[in-house]
Amino acid sequence: MKVALLAGGVGGARLAHGLSRILGSDLTVIVNTGDDLEHWGLAISPDVDTVMYTLAGLGDAARGWGLAGETFGALEQMRRYGEADWFNLGDRDLATHLVRTKALRDGHKLSEITDRMRKALGVRSRILPMCDEPVRTIIDTPEGSLPFQEWLVRRRAAPRVNAVRFEGSRVPAPGVLEAIAEAAHLIIAPSNPYVSIDPIPVSTAGAIAVSPIVKGEAVKGPLARMIVELRGEAPSPAVIAKHYGKLRGMVVERGDEAGIDVPVLATSIVMKDEEDRARLAREVLDFARGLS
Amino acid sequence: MKVALLAGGVGGARLAHGLSRILGSDLTVIVNTGDDLEHWGLAISPDVDTVMYTLAGLGDAARGWGLAGETFGALEQMRRYGEADWFNLGDRDLATHLVRTKALRDGHKLSEITDRMRKALGVRSRILPMCDEPVRTIIDTPEGSLPFQEWLVRRRAAPRVNAVRFEGSRVPAPGVLEAIAEAAHLIIAPSNPYVSIDPIPVSTAGAIAVSPIVKGEAVKGPLARMIVELRGEAPSPAVIAKHYGKLRGMVVERGDEAGIDVPVLATSIVMKDEEDRARLAREVLDFARGLS
Repeated sequence: MKVALLAGGVGGARLAHGLSRILGSDLTVIVNTGDDLEHWGLAISPDVDTVMYTLAGLGDAARGWGLAGETFGALEQMRRYGEADWFNLGDRDLATHLVRTKALRDGHKLSEITDRMRKALGVRSRILPMCDEPVRTIIDTPEGSLPFQEWLVRRRAAPRVNAVRFEGSRVPAPGVLEAIAEAAHLIIAPSNPYVSIDPIPVSTAGAIAVSPIVKGEAVKGPLARMIVELRGEAPSPAVIAKHYGKLRGMVVERGDEAGIDVPVLATSIVMKDEEDRARLAREVLDFARGLS
Repeated sequence: MKVALLAGGVGGARLAHGLSRILGSDLTVIVNTGDDLEHWGLAISPDVDTVMYTLAGLGDAARGWGLAGETFGALEQMRRYGEADWFNLGDRDLATHLVRTKALRDGHKLSEITDRMRKALGVRSRILPMCDEPVRTIIDTPEGSLPFQEWLVRRRAAPRVNAVRFEGSRVPAPGVLEAIAEAAHLIIAPSNPYVSIDPIPVSTAGAIAVSPIVKGEAVKGPLARMIVELRGEAPSPAVIAKHYGKLRGMVVERGDEAGIDVPVLATSIVMKDEEDRARLAREVLDFARGLS
């Protein structure tokens, strides 16, 4: 049974990991690249890397991003040169960005490069960046427009979010639309809808979404605040369901079912460890099969 | 008193360090760039960096190259991707190559970039790469022609040296000829004449050379073998003096004076620690003054 998963970074990577253990090469993870940035002259795709590292079993479990056993020697030396140090790039992680940057300069496509790298790391599931051409998520704030990472990391998500928009040509990368067409189920990971899922240029109609909101709070990141600032509503899975529209089903935390007008699976959706990931993945797949 | 020093990597960096402590901003070190390479998409200038790190007090004293406290996480991750791992790039060191590569792509000159970096590291003496444009030292061997680092590092200097030649336009970088013209003394560091000093496009006439050969052996590297293979002679300071020609003086290890037809200072020239560097630098400067 082929499955396509739309995913952002940490939450997306965790569900992807659970699904990957069950589905192997039958899973295609379509990953947001709106968070991508150029830094220190390197082409960086944070969400793609978080998914790739997590599926490879190389991710730092505590931090949720980056590689386990990471060091930050290059960053320290960058400080000596007076270079920007607001974006945390680990030493091992640099290898990924160096390989990608060189391959892009040599004329390869982001999707090809990603495929080569995930295979080198022994990842059986396919990881597809949503687009080959650069897309940049821009956060409009009262202090002006900020590229996503500048808003999130450099400014620690402090400026109020007036609007989210995307710059660049959002053409799906080769394989994205095919993977969705071939999939028995399209699943939306518990990622931020505005900045992780909306940038992905595919329809979410008929998808099964796992809520990124639990008991009114975001599992991770600034999503709860963004819902208040962008929609003027209290954060809830119902707001997420309404945002996506035309879902086939929604997976939420027990007690969070209120106001959702599509079939709901209420279970425990916070993934603290690998067992949580595998269990939630199984439950989501069973729920999807039951809706068919 | 202004002094110009022609230098390669490790031996050059050690004498440069001793001279720098005495002369500060009156010292200009003109550094070989024939060893430069592109690796992992990065512009790497090993000799310039060895001199810069050593003068900044950041060098790894035991290894002689690279930064103290270095880690090799990026290299390990590169191996996972199946990338070339024959050239040892440390994580802290990567910062230097990233800053340089980005600045070169942004249109800056290697000499400007080096000047900015050495200042950021608190180095008072000037460090001038010999050329702004790429120069590549090529080693002709019975197995074909090899770029210098491929011969030295990848092949561990195994193939016999038939000839050494230089590719690229060897135009002195801005400031190189001026620094030599303004200097009271031109000193040649105890570096390999064929691959560290010969690439530098300046005249060595009137210079004072410190011997890289001690008791028939090279202090470091494959020089002794190269003298045998290129000249068919036994390695000695006299061979070095003859190679440069028109020297004003030569500094050699005690007992190594034979056959040199210019004024000689015989002393202890192996620099094991910082005191050795400072003492040898003082003796070389006193010797130079005495010859004026």
